[in-house]
Amino acid sequence: MASTATCIFCKIIKGEIPCFKLFESDKTLAFLDIQPLSRGHALVIPKFHGAKLGDIPDDHLGEILPVVKKLVNATGAEDYNVLQNNGRIAHQVVDHVHFHMIPKPNEKEGLGVGWPQQNSDMEGLKKLFEEIKVKMPAQL
Amino acid sequence: MASTATCIFCKIIKGEIPCFKLFESDKTLAFLDIQPLSRGHALVIPKFHGAKLGDIPDDHLGEILPVVKKLVNATGAEDYNVLQNNGRIAHQVVDHVHFHMIPKPNEKEGLGVGWPQQNSDMEGLKKLFEEIKVKMPAQL
Repeated sequence: MASTATCIFCKIIKGEIPCFKLFESDKTLAFLDIQPLSRGHALVIPKFHGAKLGDIPDDHLGEILPVVKKLVNATGAEDYNVLQNNGRIAHQVVDHVHFHMIPKPNEKEGLGVGWPQQNSDMEGLKKLFEEIKVKMPAQL
Repeated sequence: MASTATCIFCKIIKGEIPCFKLFESDKTLAFLDIQPLSRGHALVIPKFHGAKLGDIPDDHLGEILPVVKKLVNATGAEDYNVLQNNGRIAHQVVDHVHFHMIPKPNEKEGLGVGWPQQNSDMEGLKKLFEEIKVKMPAQL
């Protein structure tokens, strides 16, 4: 589905809701997050409507990171996180794929990262690897 | 710089250190994280060596997300986070750009997200927007 009538980001794409627009191409839009975690926090979205990364065609995905890079350079961010959330439990709020570029100027501002690392289980990883590997396409 | 002798990810790319390799092209490599936050946690890296996103050429960046999507499909992850960290303060440990695909099966496993949201300051945002906008290229 290319867009939806109720999606807030589709409304921004169509110009029905204003935004601080930083970049626009046929496939991609970038704008400031108006509830930022830090100064310069911005979003890059595909114009193609899809809730999760797996829903977006490759040619739309291909433009996203080069645009994120432009935001990094334009904001002058030195330390930063690039984050894209999929699903409520993973902290997604708007169901239209969006990439956050969040500058990390100090400990208090920017993204908080929790890292509940598991112990390495090489036997378990080997088994998992074999399960996943057969489902991976060999080419782009 | 295309690679470095001391970078652990460049060594994995060259085959000097083994990995659970899930995908490889001329520009991109994907493999399991051996200290996962959840089952299926995997990494996608450009073969081009650069510490931060801003260091990587656009044509290398363009392949990354389509490969992340393949990992999502192959692992069957429903909820997940895609994260790329830049700088120690932003939780980067290895200084070679890497994208985490981290399944989020429940509250305890997977990425922990801290979101210290700031109040909207529309006047401040407007001023910031004008500062950043003039530094943004109009085209890809």
